[in-house]
Amino acid sequence: MNLKSYIRDIPDFPKKGVSYKDITPLLLDHNAMQLAVKLFINNLPHGNIDKVVGIESRGFFFATLLADKLKAGFIPVRKPGKLPYSIYTENYDLEYGSDTLEIHKDAIKEGEKVLLHDDVLATGGTAAATCRLIEKCGGEIVQCNFLVELEFLKGADKLNNYEVSSLIKYS
Amino acid sequence: MNLKSYIRDIPDFPKKGVSYKDITPLLLDHNAMQLAVKLFINNLPHGNIDKVVGIESRGFFFATLLADKLKAGFIPVRKPGKLPYSIYTENYDLEYGSDTLEIHKDAIKEGEKVLLHDDVLATGGTAAATCRLIEKCGGEIVQCNFLVELEFLKGADKLNNYEVSSLIKYS
Repeated sequence: MNLKSYIRDIPDFPKKGVSYKDITPLLLDHNAMQLAVKLFINNLPHGNIDKVVGIESRGFFFATLLADKLKAGFIPVRKPGKLPYSIYTENYDLEYGSDTLEIHKDAIKEGEKVLLHDDVLATGGTAAATCRLIEKCGGEIVQCNFLVELEFLKGADKLNNYEVSSLIKYS
Repeated sequence: MNLKSYIRDIPDFPKKGVSYKDITPLLLDHNAMQLAVKLFINNLPHGNIDKVVGIESRGFFFATLLADKLKAGFIPVRKPGKLPYSIYTENYDLEYGSDTLEIHKDAIKEGEKVLLHDDVLATGGTAAATCRLIEKCGGEIVQCNFLVELEFLKGADKLNNYEVSSLIKYS
């Protein structure tokens, strides 16, 4: 089974000139989902993982599955105004302007081992901001993993202090 | 283990007078997550389920887990502009104004058995709109299930054509 065959290219979405990688055909197929989870787990470094962080909102799809398989807690990192309790915030740059991500302060205990997951690694801005949030909480990042990596956008360069693993790559 | 003890009450969020049910403490605890999934599965009617629909975005947390356990496909129902392929849309009323949900037309085949999941059943508007989306695609709804039901808002009344199941109830 070739996972890449489950990714649908959508030309000019969300704007002209961008070829969007639509992961929903993969989500529709239980066997493809199961294979992706197995590969994510196989690619992890040895050792215990306490928490899995998923980035809003497509990062939630696999982060909960990974937390389940690893017997770890699940943490949603969210856009502003969604998390109701005491939070840390981090800004990151967009092509035009900037955006913000938030984490609950009590989500991670000092020294806990944390896996970061998102669906797509593009420019790396959201993942790098999430790394900063995890470290503000005292967490140790064991890996940043992604279903899809757009290598030509060089997002991994923004994560060069961390182990990065991606299942499906576009160069 | 009492699942309700993992729900945190946040007074006056997102606005004055509302007591918000924060499910993130439950997500942080692997054993509580596992119990919730087990109870969801135990409460299902007999028979095969082809697809599990989760509503953006807190509905994604358990919908992917349920799809995994049921060996079913997972479908995200999303806010406008997020799904890139051919879609159906449904509007629903809010306290002030209205909002819209979308589903990919190719997500469900005619006659497929579909489980709808969301984290909280409040007034029932989003769940009812999602039922209409599933039926536009030709799906048969086998159950609508929720982690939390705010019974005093009578959301189940909007779903009276369907089986409704909730794990944690506030009356």
